[in-house]
Amino acid sequence: MVCLGLDPRPNAHPLTAGLTAAGATATAVQRYLTTVLDATHDLLACCKPQSAFFEALGLPGLEALAGVMSHARSLGLPVILDAKRGDIGSTAAAYAKAYLTDGDLAADALTVNPYLGLDTLEPFIAAAEAGGRGLFVLVRTSNPGSADLQELAVEGGGPLYCKLADALTARAASLPRDPHGYTSLGAVAGATHPAATRELRTRLPHSLLLVPGYGAQGGSAADAAVAFDENGWGAVVNASRSLTYPPGAAKATSLPEVAAAARAAARAMRDDLNRALEIS
Amino acid sequence: MVCLGLDPRPNAHPLTAGLTAAGATATAVQRYLTTVLDATHDLLACCKPQSAFFEALGLPGLEALAGVMSHARSLGLPVILDAKRGDIGSTAAAYAKAYLTDGDLAADALTVNPYLGLDTLEPFIAAAEAGGRGLFVLVRTSNPGSADLQELAVEGGGPLYCKLADALTARAASLPRDPHGYTSLGAVAGATHPAATRELRTRLPHSLLLVPGYGAQGGSAADAAVAFDENGWGAVVNASRSLTYPPGAAKATSLPEVAAAARAAARAMRDDLNRALEIS
Repeated sequence: MVCLGLDPRPNAHPLTAGLTAAGATATAVQRYLTTVLDATHDLLACCKPQSAFFEALGLPGLEALAGVMSHARSLGLPVILDAKRGDIGSTAAAYAKAYLTDGDLAADALTVNPYLGLDTLEPFIAAAEAGGRGLFVLVRTSNPGSADLQELAVEGGGPLYCKLADALTARAASLPRDPHGYTSLGAVAGATHPAATRELRTRLPHSLLLVPGYGAQGGSAADAAVAFDENGWGAVVNASRSLTYPPGAAKATSLPEVAAAARAAARAMRDDLNRALEIS
Repeated sequence: MVCLGLDPRPNAHPLTAGLTAAGATATAVQRYLTTVLDATHDLLACCKPQSAFFEALGLPGLEALAGVMSHARSLGLPVILDAKRGDIGSTAAAYAKAYLTDGDLAADALTVNPYLGLDTLEPFIAAAEAGGRGLFVLVRTSNPGSADLQELAVEGGGPLYCKLADALTARAASLPRDPHGYTSLGAVAGATHPAATRELRTRLPHSLLLVPGYGAQGGSAADAAVAFDENGWGAVVNASRSLTYPPGAAKATSLPEVAAAARAAARAMRDDLNRALEIS
């Protein structure tokens, strides 16, 4: 149930900080993250590279992203690319082609932004269905300002994010389901709002939930546990900084030390979630 | 007032279609679009590469994007990168670093998605202010399904997009203004909804409007004209397919023929807008 967030922050670690050429930084970041993947993959459900941090390194960063995703898939680990793309019509189709087909930036699933309207999700749904891949639609995000739009009360009653969730469930009704009842149409539900996550678990019976906000952002295992169904399925909980830059790795001067600290952090998170699920 | 949309659709033209290697396609696309830029730049206010169509070509496509943006800037033409990015906190800051500082994917302005909340715009605003660049926040988009969320009536009355517009105007109040009263905080207002665009011109007195939807999507010059203020400032009108793949270029077998057709199309659009502004 653990999703390893891969957010390269070069200055967060001595082994990747202080390099002056963008290409050198991207290469160091790729080596660091593949080390973390190698050390943790058997403890994980999936990994989630955050595209923004790779894009911030320019073209060499995007090459590193392609390399990290390829490495994860070679380990048999599903990749959710967190790129929060969204656009209209043929432009949405172009994003779907970039990330949900077989190009060098392809992932197993993609996060998408619904603000432009439900019609703009269709090219992503079509690509996901055609290729056995998945989507996670932003419904309720983990940041303090997420209430600005997502919690506005809308016509018909209730907050915007619930209205959106109901529309996604209506859309999911015609999609194929796995043995646990889930479709390719997932949703993002931040662990920092457990009451909302509980609500979304009920309103989105056919959507896997991607739960950010555990760890560095303040969400607890108990907050995240409400995202799972009564059989313990239906969600993955993401942590980025607390797994890739755990306190035990802060002063590591070699990649094997990073690997050991990351593995310990991933195991601790898995155990933390397991305990919370047994209790809840 | 014309914004040249650069959406590479390789199969839309014989000079870029049918190449089998992604690298060859990206190179052909870059040559095609720089030809169009060379032929039209003196008729334009700015250009707007659509990141999705470059991302769909994979890593070579992103190299082509960097090349096209660099070429536009060498012509003195401002570049609005249409990437509709949006994320929280430090992730938003990473996108701002990627596109609003001096990296190889840097632009003069960026389109951003506000669904995650107003706090998520702050890193973009900070980067824009620091670097003399700009933002265009999605407010009312040009697609048929844009009403799904954007037109929902929200608490306090009125549609969501108006509530968002008022929040942007409140935020713009503390930003520096140019001699015409505009700040770095622009907005997107689709030409396919002229009543909404007219409303937004009033509600967003300190925001430049980026107006998509003219041409192939059905918006007319009169529809777009309502985005300008009474002095003829305050907006740029985008067209992509009708300028880069105009009917006159459809069967062109050489780049000079493409150049001539694109120039004629850009001039016709400029004249069309000028007429509409004189009448309105």
